Amino acid sequence: MDGKAGYGARVNQTGDTRVATVLDRKTDYVVADISLADFGRKEINIAETEMPGLMALREEFAASQPLKGARITGSLHMTIQTAVLIETLTALGADVRWATCNIFSTQDHAAAAIAATGVPVFAIKGESLADYWDYVGDIFNWGADTDKGGNGQTANIILDDGGDATMFALWGAKLEVGHTLGEPENDEEVEFQRALKAFVAKYPGYLTDTVKNLKGVSEETTTGVHRLYEIAKKGELPFPAINVNDSVTKSKFDNLYGCKESLVDAIRRATDVMLAGKVACVAGFGDVGKGSAQSLRNGGARVMVTEVDPICALQAAMEGFEVVTMEEAVTRADIFCTATGNADVITAEHMAAMKPMSIVCNIGHFDSEIQISALSNYEWDEVKPGTDLVKFPDGKQILILAKGRLVNLGCATGHPSFVMSASFTNQTLAQIELWTKGENYKNQVYVLPKHLDEKVAALHLEKLGVKLSKLTPKQAGYIGVPTEGPFKPDHYRY
Amino acid sequence: MDGKAGYGARVNQTGDTRVATVLDRKTDYVVADISLADFGRKEINIAETEMPGLMALREEFAASQPLKGARITGSLHMTIQTAVLIETLTALGADVRWATCNIFSTQDHAAAAIAATGVPVFAIKGESLADYWDYVGDIFNWGADTDKGGNGQTANIILDDGGDATMFALWGAKLEVGHTLGEPENDEEVEFQRALKAFVAKYPGYLTDTVKNLKGVSEETTTGVHRLYEIAKKGELPFPAINVNDSVTKSKFDNLYGCKESLVDAIRRATDVMLAGKVACVAGFGDVGKGSAQSLRNGGARVMVTEVDPICALQAAMEGFEVVTMEEAVTRADIFCTATGNADVITAEHMAAMKPMSIVCNIGHFDSEIQISALSNYEWDEVKPGTDLVKFPDGKQILILAKGRLVNLGCATGHPSFVMSASFTNQTLAQIELWTKGENYKNQVYVLPKHLDEKVAALHLEKLGVKLSKLTPKQAGYIGVPTEGPFKPDHYRY
Amino acid sequence: MDGKAGYGARVNQTGDTRVATVLDRKTDYVVADISLADFGRKEINIAETEMPGLMALREEFAASQPLKGARITGSLHMTIQTAVLIETLTALGADVRWATCNIFSTQDHAAAAIAATGVPVFAIKGESLADYWDYVGDIFNWGADTDKGGNGQTANIILDDGGDATMFALWGAKLEVGHTLGEPENDEEVEFQRALKAFVAKYPGYLTDTVKNLKGVSEETTTGVHRLYEIAKKGELPFPAINVNDSVTKSKFDNLYGCKESLVDAIRRATDVMLAGKVACVAGFGDVGKGSAQSLRNGGARVMVTEVDPICALQAAMEGFEVVTMEEAVTRADIFCTATGNADVITAEHMAAMKPMSIVCNIGHFDSEIQISALSNYEWDEVKPGTDLVKFPDGKQILILAKGRLVNLGCATGHPSFVMSASFTNQTLAQIELWTKGENYKNQVYVLPKHLDEKVAALHLEKLGVKLSKLTPKQAGYIGVPTEGPFKPDHYRY
Amino acid sequence: MDGKAGYGARVNQTGDTRVATVLDRKTDYVVADISLADFGRKEINIAETEMPGLMALREEFAASQPLKGARITGSLHMTIQTAVLIETLTALGADVRWATCNIFSTQDHAAAAIAATGVPVFAIKGESLADYWDYVGDIFNWGADTDKGGNGQTANIILDDGGDATMFALWGAKLEVGHTLGEPENDEEVEFQRALKAFVAKYPGYLTDTVKNLKGVSEETTTGVHRLYEIAKKGELPFPAINVNDSVTKSKFDNLYGCKESLVDAIRRATDVMLAGKVACVAGFGDVGKGSAQSLRNGGARVMVTEVDPICALQAAMEGFEVVTMEEAVTRADIFCTATGNADVITAEHMAAMKPMSIVCNIGHFDSEIQISALSNYEWDEVKPGTDLVKFPDGKQILILAKGRLVNLGCATGHPSFVMSASFTNQTLAQIELWTKGENYKNQVYVLPKHLDEKVAALHLEKLGVKLSKLTPKQAGYIGVPTEGPFKPDHYRY
Repeated sequence: MDGKAGYGARVNQTGDTRVATVLDRKTDYVVADISLADFGRKEINIAETEMPGLMALREEFAASQPLKGARITGSLHMTIQTAVLIETLTALGADVRWATCNIFSTQDHAAAAIAATGVPVFAIKGESLADYWDYVGDIFNWGADTDKGGNGQTANIILDDGGDATMFALWGAKLEVGHTLGEPENDEEVEFQRALKAFVAKYPGYLTDTVKNLKGVSEETTTGVHRLYEIAKKGELPFPAINVNDSVTKSKFDNLYGCKESLVDAIRRATDVMLAGKVACVAGFGDVGKGSAQSLRNGGARVMVTEVDPICALQAAMEGFEVVTMEEAVTRADIFCTATGNADVITAEHMAAMKPMSIVCNIGHFDSEIQISALSNYEWDEVKPGTDLVKFPDGKQILILAKGRLVNLGCATGHPSFVMSASFTNQTLAQIELWTKGENYKNQVYVLPKHLDEKVAALHLEKLGVKLSKLTPKQAGYIGVPTEGPFKPDHYRY
Repeated sequence: MDGKAGYGARVNQTGDTRVATVLDRKTDYVVADISLADFGRKEINIAETEMPGLMALREEFAASQPLKGARITGSLHMTIQTAVLIETLTALGADVRWATCNIFSTQDHAAAAIAATGVPVFAIKGESLADYWDYVGDIFNWGADTDKGGNGQTANIILDDGGDATMFALWGAKLEVGHTLGEPENDEEVEFQRALKAFVAKYPGYLTDTVKNLKGVSEETTTGVHRLYEIAKKGELPFPAINVNDSVTKSKFDNLYGCKESLVDAIRRATDVMLAGKVACVAGFGDVGKGSAQSLRNGGARVMVTEVDPICALQAAMEGFEVVTMEEAVTRADIFCTATGNADVITAEHMAAMKPMSIVCNIGHFDSEIQISALSNYEWDEVKPGTDLVKFPDGKQILILAKGRLVNLGCATGHPSFVMSASFTNQTLAQIELWTKGENYKNQVYVLPKHLDEKVAALHLEKLGVKLSKLTPKQAGYIGVPTEGPFKPDHYRY
Repeated sequence: MDGKAGYGARVNQTGDTRVATVLDRKTDYVVADISLADFGRKEINIAETEMPGLMALREEFAASQPLKGARITGSLHMTIQTAVLIETLTALGADVRWATCNIFSTQDHAAAAIAATGVPVFAIKGESLADYWDYVGDIFNWGADTDKGGNGQTANIILDDGGDATMFALWGAKLEVGHTLGEPENDEEVEFQRALKAFVAKYPGYLTDTVKNLKGVSEETTTGVHRLYEIAKKGELPFPAINVNDSVTKSKFDNLYGCKESLVDAIRRATDVMLAGKVACVAGFGDVGKGSAQSLRNGGARVMVTEVDPICALQAAMEGFEVVTMEEAVTRADIFCTATGNADVITAEHMAAMKPMSIVCNIGHFDSEIQISALSNYEWDEVKPGTDLVKFPDGKQILILAKGRLVNLGCATGHPSFVMSASFTNQTLAQIELWTKGENYKNQVYVLPKHLDEKVAALHLEKLGVKLSKLTPKQAGYIGVPTEGPFKPDHYRY
Repeated sequence: MDGKAGYGARVNQTGDTRVATVLDRKTDYVVADISLADFGRKEINIAETEMPGLMALREEFAASQPLKGARITGSLHMTIQTAVLIETLTALGADVRWATCNIFSTQDHAAAAIAATGVPVFAIKGESLADYWDYVGDIFNWGADTDKGGNGQTANIILDDGGDATMFALWGAKLEVGHTLGEPENDEEVEFQRALKAFVAKYPGYLTDTVKNLKGVSEETTTGVHRLYEIAKKGELPFPAINVNDSVTKSKFDNLYGCKESLVDAIRRATDVMLAGKVACVAGFGDVGKGSAQSLRNGGARVMVTEVDPICALQAAMEGFEVVTMEEAVTRADIFCTATGNADVITAEHMAAMKPMSIVCNIGHFDSEIQISALSNYEWDEVKPGTDLVKFPDGKQILILAKGRLVNLGCATGHPSFVMSASFTNQTLAQIELWTKGENYKNQVYVLPKHLDEKVAALHLEKLGVKLSKLTPKQAGYIGVPTEGPFKPDHYRY
């Protein structure tokens, strides 16, 4: 499937004449419908009441403006929650240019609301891959068009989810000093290379300047973090990076509790199916898989789990889940959800063996977990956006959600605001850390120190009415920690 | 609130010239958008795979056509599930005319799909109360317009939810023999009386004929059943009635398991709120309240319950719910849902005392549980259809869902198909019973015999892979029941 | 199995010379060890704090002494909770003689504590069947030994569990007017007939007097109630009976919530097994089965259910239990518990097919559910009282708990005090009703009126901190009930 | 104490004449009652079927005898599960001497069964502190009594729980080279110093030899591990140590799932209390606290949590627990359990403010969490061993379980065998690692490599019927791990 055929089949915004003239538009934003701004603003207002960590930072740093001077290039799902993040960053003094990091995850009213405030945002639910990569160019263009009045400024910090923005800048700078790109392996890489080359051709030297000016990157996800560690291992990281994903208040909250609520929400919005009496199979029992399995169990289904890691498998068994192979699950389950971060977890053969009307979806970051492409020759019947009936040669139909991409963002609204507040408070603290103390960091990958992780948690307690106990000095001495924390050794697993 | 201002603010279909000329339309249906029929059909096809009881009846009775000759006037939420019910009735030989029983509960694509098959259906999500009552007239008009070619036929059986259709016919017949209607007490009664008088004026004697021809009514809900018992007690019931609500496979399934899935679904679609960490309060711990409390707990919230009945209160406590008064709950909870079947359960004073951004909704049949009307002078800001921010004089805002009406039908898609299949299989069996054996019944209210209740359950087992055990003759003798059932005494509570 | 071989193999208390001289003892009680009285008293004191219904009745009726003059013959498991019941009855003015209704269920320290107060009690954990039936004679002997100073008084009311005491009196009176007993079908009936004939021979006419003096019986269980309905149907019930079992506050609390806590408690005390990761199978999904299945699930196991009734089977499926046949379960489950009230639910063949070290127990009233007798020729190895390893011919061993009898009383301490308080408050109210208003009742079987059922619940709310809401007169009118209740129609299922 | 006097009220086993002649006994063991060996053996046989990891090691290493030559000094709760550990160590070739590590945790039948096999074991439930420390000496005496025929051999490896055995050897060696011991701060230290000095006086130089011969120590608990890290930090660790506690298959299983089952088990055995309707408070939400809170919730109670760490507090809130301070909890909860690893968590003032008949217990390693000593002047009334009623000056009574020590070992039988199998498989692998590859390790503290952690999990899957999936080479490459694992980075939190 190429991006254009995607979700809701929206047309290429910039039309057939696209020649990397990324700013040949009347506005410095690309959104689906700017008239959705009011609706978006109402939901942003509501979300703010559920994101106490971000709101607390706005208050704490209102006067000191720690991000003053920061020009943040941001690439992260353009949702209502991200809108609150963006406006927190700007409230702390930053300038921001924003694109989504996934062609299906944008909430168009959120994008519109942000665009309406004058913050440049480039995101449309169902945008093409071509547009996607041009928008990445757009968020790096802080004044490259010097011949049209651009001031020649560049981004000086990145906020990334998955690493696409970081990769764009780093590869752009490499291109400019003579490196070449390998053969593209798929549609996505074709568009990446096309967009990057066009940008470099149009603004030669600009991405080299950009990389030079960058004080760092804060990265949201496992995937992006993995890329950063690889680069750092080779000694090629030109600035410090903060791994936000591995903050406890991110990976053990967003990944776990977010999925716990959003998976059944997505399945219900997409299918209205009754979960009671049904059998579900969750592939993978990491944090996302744990949340997903609980989501389906609490939703009413009996849940089976598949795993390759014996420790996670034993955890699943201890939690009362039957652990089976996918080969066994396909004939027993009614609902399937992948959460492995791996590829080919549900193959075409698996789907061919499923019961009629099985529901198949993925909650992992990439759409490689289900072999969707192997079904491309079959008959797809879109019931509604995000819900497709796929007919197999024998006449059997199954339901594929969100075309195999992130089901909670594709069929519902992603994780709830409250849990995203924890993740994004980490992001904001990481940006402050890099911007104000970047010189303290080497060109390596860091996690936020535990006292900031604990601060993130602390900022979310009052909203829930949590009353925290205080250690007496005697008690603190007894367990050998300061009375104000940090309270645990770094290897503590929570 | 008048119906017109309601949900989605759709215009009155018949325009300003409404004069009870209910069939002065080009089509024998009123739906929002007939072009939604294809979408509706796709969802009907999916729903059929989840409604094994109805599909089994289609198969069992395909040849014998037990409902041949029946002209069913049906009044019940016009949803996808009801579409499968309607097509089951027609597959068994019946003719059907259908209206919704609630101005907000229609799924427009379901109505369109049914209308497109030629079955007359009268239902629009957000229709006005005036339209609502005219549509009740429409479903009784089986050929009243003899001057325009009507054949003079009437309905000969009713399928009702809440009793509005039954009341229309009975009061119409009374009007025709000189009874008068009391003073209307509210907007709803104004429209009821207007519509009924207009109908009687236009087709004098027709409703008297109708009542004479009716072989009975099957009633879906507690409310409608209550009305029927009252009429029967006075000896004024002119035909037998079957109380479908009190089939075990209705009240202990639809009410309980339906709400268990649909309440959080509705709240999430309306608000995207995170339930983990939140405190919810469910008013009432009957079957609907039990399902609602479990829904919110399984969704992640801590749940408090209010009750007036000490037995239900003790059940709530045994299930681990904190039982409080609403006065206490208003300052502690974040989410409120009424499920009492009573009035004024959440008053304006209660809402004034709630925390900012509290979420307030009702899952009971009528919108009397929350004093919505007392908020009419405050500022209402519609975030999206079904979700309103209401601002109090002190500036505090709360979120009201579905304007206080049935939240799972107003903000989501109601109960899932599978559990509705049990309810509607009871309905179909009740219709068959009345139509084919009506003469065995007196003009009283009956529940279906236990063997049919057990049959309904049995028809839903295979879909879930349930393997039923069989009593040996010795075992059956030991507990004193037939080997094939019924297995329990009538007073058994399940 | 004869009683002597049973649980802990205690010897016959009255020795070889037993000749129905039931009072040829130095004391008017038979307990295992009177020195346990202090221990029993401590636990009774604790239990009183958990039995608010009984304690409230003591307070309410302290002055009026409604049971003054009542001579209660009581037959019910002689536990700590029953001790609190007995002392409530005496606190209300009654005289009491007590025996257990099950040879394994006595808590010897409870029996000792009661005996030490001078109340005649006849119960030893593991008593023989011969003793059991002689003790039934003992509790009817209120002064039959007129030649030894007996005053000739008789019981004038029965409190029964299972119907053995009632049967003893009724059959005794029949014998005295010439009826004969059939051939005994098993060891139990042999002892019943022996004991009854001896009693009648020794005290001719006394049981006839007794039956004449009886103002009624209150019966605790389904089984006993079933016997009473049979007798009443034949018109042979000589006094009114109150069916305590079918009070909502008994069957929906004791049976459900009692088992929910006591089943895993019993299994753990007997086996120390880890439940997480295990598969359990509960046979039967009535109230006891529902509680048992939840007990095991909440304890950590995955739970399968077997059922014959399609409605209960569908409930199990809706609750997320896999419903299978026992034939399938035997090869998949690790733990088995019967809760059907039927016979031969787990057969010898089933057990032969189980996995090694399977745990097998019964929580139903009678030990007929598991075919224990079919294993009598195999090697039994008692690990500790209540836990036996049984070796099959192929060398496989399984664990049988409580020799197939009531596992929660045989391996642990039965239901917790709090839930028994609800049951026993019903019992006490039934005794008061029969004793003070017996003339209002015909010789039929009655359930307590709903207002008393609600009273029982109400008496248990404060202990749990429950705050009950009050209906306004308007609300009461709206739903058509008195403001103080009763709140539900009689057919309401809760 | 003479073992018969049971729990509490310890007396010195060897009487007044104790002069550190630790082997002046007729037998090379001290157990309460050797006649319990048969009962112990039966339970050991059952436990073996639940400890697949240990049994698999016996099979894997039956031929190679990797522990041949090892003389293991073991100090760990002498339970049935530990018996299976001991017999696994001996099956692998080791010689073993064993003592308990807690004066209340011994299961006397387990100790007897081990002693009966000729393995020297020194452990009595309720032993005195004096005996406790003398027994530590006993397990180091592998032939010190050269004048009585001892061969002069020493221990050459330690298996420890809490670090007492390790401390005894290290301090003994220090004493022998002239170090002095500080002033004892409490009864425990008095006895430690007395026993150690006596041992050194009797066998001068022997502990120095011992330390020289030791190839290492494997340590079970957080506490012991903490001590080892302190010593290693100072460079004073004379041999390598393996931290078993922080194996994932220990801390995330034993601590979490063990407590989840054993806490309610202990409370029920001790009090028979009904949990439904009750409010419980768990202090601490680490692994033990998480398991404890789930235990009580799944048991039926509503659960509140206290925490000092904002991250753990937020986890508790996300899991639906109300997070309060102990000051608030004392007036609301009925049941209290400490799980913090800290001191003074429930103070005398807290207990004075509790509701009458509150139940108070501790599941943390040390009895410092509850200020038991502050209650010493109040009236204690032992209901049964492990259950005391304590009367406050105002007459209020509360129930203290296990005198504030580890409630699951004091009032029940500790964690179930299955989860202990995972912990003890780690222990055995650690012993093998130290004994066979000790030279690869420096004198530091190590955790087992991840592949062994995964092996431990793998050995426990088959028993539960878990079917593990296998990575394809392509999939392994995709996520960058070997197909056979390890599957996760070291910092992964599970």
